Amino acid sequence: MSKLLRINTKEKTYTFEEAGELAALGGRALTSKMILDEVPATCHPLSKSNKLVIAPGLLGGTPAFNSGRLSVGAKSPLTGGIKESNAGGLVAQKLAKMDIKAVVLEDKPEIDDAFSMLVIKKDSVEFLPADEYAGQGTNATINGLWDKYGKRTAVMCIGQAGEQRLTGASIQLADPKGHAGRACGRGGLGAVMGSKKIKAIVVDDTSADKVPVADPEAFKEANKKWGRLLKDHPVTGQGLPSFGTAILVNIVNEAGALPTKNFREGRFEFAQDISGERMVELINERGGVPTEGCHPGCVIRCSQVYHDKNGKYLTSGFEYETIWGFGSNLLVKDYDEIAMMDAICDDVGVDTIEMAGSLGVAMEGGLIQWGDGQAAIDLLNKIKTGDPLGKIIGNGAAFTGKALGVDRVPVVKNQTIPAYDPRAVKGVGVTYATSPMGADHTAGYSVTANILKVGGDVNPLKKENNIELSKNLQIATAAIDAAGLCLFVAFAVLDSDNGIQLIVDMINARYGLSLTPDDVIALGKSILENENEFNRRAGFTKKDDQLPSFFKDERLPPHNTTWDFTEEELQTAKVS
Amino acid sequence: MSKLLRINTKEKTYTFEEAGELAALGGRALTSKMILDEVPATCHPLSKSNKLVIAPGLLGGTPAFNSGRLSVGAKSPLTGGIKESNAGGLVAQKLAKMDIKAVVLEDKPEIDDAFSMLVIKKDSVEFLPADEYAGQGTNATINGLWDKYGKRTAVMCIGQAGEQRLTGASIQLADPKGHAGRACGRGGLGAVMGSKKIKAIVVDDTSADKVPVADPEAFKEANKKWGRLLKDHPVTGQGLPSFGTAILVNIVNEAGALPTKNFREGRFEFAQDISGERMVELINERGGVPTEGCHPGCVIRCSQVYHDKNGKYLTSGFEYETIWGFGSNLLVKDYDEIAMMDAICDDVGVDTIEMAGSLGVAMEGGLIQWGDGQAAIDLLNKIKTGDPLGKIIGNGAAFTGKALGVDRVPVVKNQTIPAYDPRAVKGVGVTYATSPMGADHTAGYSVTANILKVGGDVNPLKKENNIELSKNLQIATAAIDAAGLCLFVAFAVLDSDNGIQLIVDMINARYGLSLTPDDVIALGKSILENENEFNRRAGFTKKDDQLPSFFKDERLPPHNTTWDFTEEELQTAKVS
Repeated sequence: MSKLLRINTKEKTYTFEEAGELAALGGRALTSKMILDEVPATCHPLSKSNKLVIAPGLLGGTPAFNSGRLSVGAKSPLTGGIKESNAGGLVAQKLAKMDIKAVVLEDKPEIDDAFSMLVIKKDSVEFLPADEYAGQGTNATINGLWDKYGKRTAVMCIGQAGEQRLTGASIQLADPKGHAGRACGRGGLGAVMGSKKIKAIVVDDTSADKVPVADPEAFKEANKKWGRLLKDHPVTGQGLPSFGTAILVNIVNEAGALPTKNFREGRFEFAQDISGERMVELINERGGVPTEGCHPGCVIRCSQVYHDKNGKYLTSGFEYETIWGFGSNLLVKDYDEIAMMDAICDDVGVDTIEMAGSLGVAMEGGLIQWGDGQAAIDLLNKIKTGDPLGKIIGNGAAFTGKALGVDRVPVVKNQTIPAYDPRAVKGVGVTYATSPMGADHTAGYSVTANILKVGGDVNPLKKENNIELSKNLQIATAAIDAAGLCLFVAFAVLDSDNGIQLIVDMINARYGLSLTPDDVIALGKSILENENEFNRRAGFTKKDDQLPSFFKDERLPPHNTTWDFTEEELQTAKVS
Repeated sequence: MSKLLRINTKEKTYTFEEAGELAALGGRALTSKMILDEVPATCHPLSKSNKLVIAPGLLGGTPAFNSGRLSVGAKSPLTGGIKESNAGGLVAQKLAKMDIKAVVLEDKPEIDDAFSMLVIKKDSVEFLPADEYAGQGTNATINGLWDKYGKRTAVMCIGQAGEQRLTGASIQLADPKGHAGRACGRGGLGAVMGSKKIKAIVVDDTSADKVPVADPEAFKEANKKWGRLLKDHPVTGQGLPSFGTAILVNIVNEAGALPTKNFREGRFEFAQDISGERMVELINERGGVPTEGCHPGCVIRCSQVYHDKNGKYLTSGFEYETIWGFGSNLLVKDYDEIAMMDAICDDVGVDTIEMAGSLGVAMEGGLIQWGDGQAAIDLLNKIKTGDPLGKIIGNGAAFTGKALGVDRVPVVKNQTIPAYDPRAVKGVGVTYATSPMGADHTAGYSVTANILKVGGDVNPLKKENNIELSKNLQIATAAIDAAGLCLFVAFAVLDSDNGIQLIVDMINARYGLSLTPDDVIALGKSILENENEFNRRAGFTKKDDQLPSFFKDERLPPHNTTWDFTEEELQTAKVS
């Protein structure tokens, strides 16, 4: 029997209840449905009325390759709208094995109550004092909990940023090696967990069964083809495993779309110094790990372990977005400085993209100088101590802009725009503007057809066909997020005739269903409908589906394009 | 010929142009019309697209009693909506005498350009370096400018808060004695002036004529009756002149509506210690001035000069709102501590109501302790130095709430709720919720009929008739703000049969018109229509016309009422 695990963080009680109709959902489909139905859209995101919903995907816990993503949803303290953020790690698969469709953190203790931690087992939840871990970074927290509960448990936790309820706060998940390098980064979900005074969640699936599969043969067959599909595609089979997501640095720079100096230019003079190719050189020289998965069953293996000059562990899960954000965005070209910033963000528990926005705005406002990586590191280090400057930076780019009186702030719905300039990758610009999530490249990654020429070829510099491209990808992405699949499977799926069918086959075999690809598209649409409905109830309008005006006013070198979609055009990209 | 004076702050140029149709407007009617027509509603309030419009009222510069208010408008950096804030001082009358309907600050220099000051004369504008004054408080700025340009000039300026473009920043005006005690406080207009790099504006009307009056006899006759009306009413003729606006402390406390400990209770144990009666005792003991006008021609004279224990000047224009905000709101009962906070706010140039919100939230979040006046003073003192904590506090209550992760934040449209608990003065609660200005008691001061029983008697604890009360007052207030009259004339007008007629008579005599009271009401409505239209274009919806949910969830002692208007009911209070 599929269960929802509801946890009252004020009363320190819990109930397992039948999932009922919600059992048919998973991942983002489930988190967004529950947030829409159970959270008053106009409530304060840090109030007792908000809920944190933690859900594995429909394929979670199965042997399906790359199906170990965990969705976390809530009303976002950063955007004020609905939010789903997903990550790898070990939690999703273990929850799925215990047939827990979702863990729901409800209500909240007093603001100055002590932090607790939760140990979730098949039929029980323990509330324990977290005094040992409160005030600690995520790595120390994970290490401590693995020492105590063993390395077979899964851990998700917040750092000092989440404890402070900063709107840039992430929830970090231990990867298979116990590094705190996987993040539900976007939208300040760590602040929601912090408001509920939960420092960490340990998931122990010791006595859990395997996930039941209705038709094991069919499942095995489909998954075999699925693995081959992922292995055979040049992006998922070669590019990402070889260089990680940082492979994009040179590609996007070449396309003239690598945001440089807070979105002033599309090319960075020192792109080569911060490229994926260079990263792998450094990793190999220093004895790091060039390719690994963020969760068991990953065949793409775009993660890595990056060592410092002395060959000591520095960071892991070192992504293109982070390298862009602390690199070209700030005019920093020293890879070790960028890696240090990534490490600090993972440990204190903040979103690297949002912090990239904060630091860019801090440079814009003259708080620190362009290109000064050490000053940026020093600023990030202020977050953990509760220093007022740390609170400013840790609350994100829009907040930092307000603190410093800066009007050139690259956000949509208050969330920092990621690593593709929307003037030179217009399809992803449509996604930034119209996704219910706020600016989010993963919500509809049009970089595929715009730049990589995967799944089509749409001119990134012109408006034509980019609305449709973004809209279709937003729908497909929502479905992938519901399945609990890594978004990167999309590269292979988009270039194949039977990719979606294979996903459908696995879901059908898992649950004994007979869904069609159309059903999956319908699921994707329904997710977006739910999310847009929540945002409407929260007061969002088409005025919120806009890029900042400087993208319209300033031409982006080298292509000298501007952002030129009208309000009405953008509305057509939305699934209402 | 009525003129608009447009000043390009980037090019440092100016043009006088014919006011044309706008000549029929004044004060808030003019600022809101120009903002609606000329400022893109979705622009960043600190961008070059925003404008700061400075306008005397329709009766400005005439001998009409209490007609010296200056309206300043812009898109608000605090609320994101349209804003008009008005104050006394000397600027309005001098601009009106030069037949300048509005001064419009446009465009903006680079963020790190030096500050300028403007000297406006009848036919010319000088742009001068403000190096001497940049970084100075408003009192030093005004003193320096009076030393240079003489005490017959009018000065408006920003303090260090406006220079930093903090969203709590005010524009301060010199009162007739040269004290920086009069403020366009609300909505962060000082940040707009700061973004345009204008530190101060000196208005020198040396060679200006008198304001022309079409029918001098009729004007004189109406004004004589008008003065008598104001003198004869117990509030404007006795209460306000005797005790200032602080007379309200005991009255509102008695009514159980004096917000105490960040809106937790409606009565303050030590209300007597911070009452108007006590203030006047202290002023008289110490050689201050118990009653004076904020502009020439004021017969209400609710302002005052407050000396410290050593008989030295401490502050002036020491208002009920300020005394509440730094008093019962923070559980502070020491009058000198409260006066010191007022003095700091005037000098650094921030809104006292917004800072009351910030400090209340800072106490809520544990940054400083309840009742610790010295800690509150220390925090306010951090604003002028650019300290990060000062930036947090100086950006207002919602910002402070986000910085500290506090969800119990008393704001509407991001602006701090003033000194009447909406659960116990429901008419003013309707105004807070529905005014296009954000939470603002002056936008529809239902305290009149709710508490003072002026202009009617509407139960403040029940919903009945409070929508209508607020709506009518919002309309009347907009008209009064267009006339350039002090809002307090409303006490006398509401209790009289011919108050509005007298205002109409003066406007008719001044301009040679034949308006009726209905025309004035129509003007008030049209102002609200323009303002609501701007906010709609900026993306505001009925979801923004709400009080924070804690007013619905928490009962307010002693009456134990909650806020219980529905979204739909509140919409009926709006002039669409």
